[in-house]
Amino acid sequence: MEQLAKALGKRIRALRKAYGLSQDALALASHIDRSYMGRIERGEVNITVDKLYRIARVLGCDPASLLPPATKIQVN
Amino acid sequence: MEQLAKALGKRIRALRKAYGLSQDALALASHIDRSYMGRIERGEVNITVDKLYRIARVLGCDPASLLPPATKIQVN
Repeated sequence: MEQLAKALGKRIRALRKAYGLSQDALALASHIDRSYMGRIERGEVNITVDKLYRIARVLGCDPASLLPPATKIQVN
Repeated sequence: MEQLAKALGKRIRALRKAYGLSQDALALASHIDRSYMGRIERGEVNITVDKLYRIARVLGCDPASLLPPATKIQVN
């Protein structure tokens, strides 16, 4: 899970920055607790698909585009 | 969340059946509790991205392909 969470967090952070949003602004707009959003971006938590959709909606992208390629993720 | 969970559960069930797997076999192979897998397919739970990858790996598909189109999902 860790590898997936880290890769997903990295992608969310990169897109957020490209979008010019602060972490707090993304958290607020996606109705996610600010400190939890930090943990998401650091890959410390395994988010739900629902949160994936909420984050993607704020970042104006397709949820699938946030997902790291499965070929690069070791799933146990 | 409900609409998303229901749409995702439907897609997982359809692909599982197309793949010729029983719900128990999918649960076993993806290390998910059998009764929880039933709740996933009925759209009663909001699964994590980690479980999405595990299910996709067993069904031999890309995790992104299991995700319902965001345009059809009302996210609150």
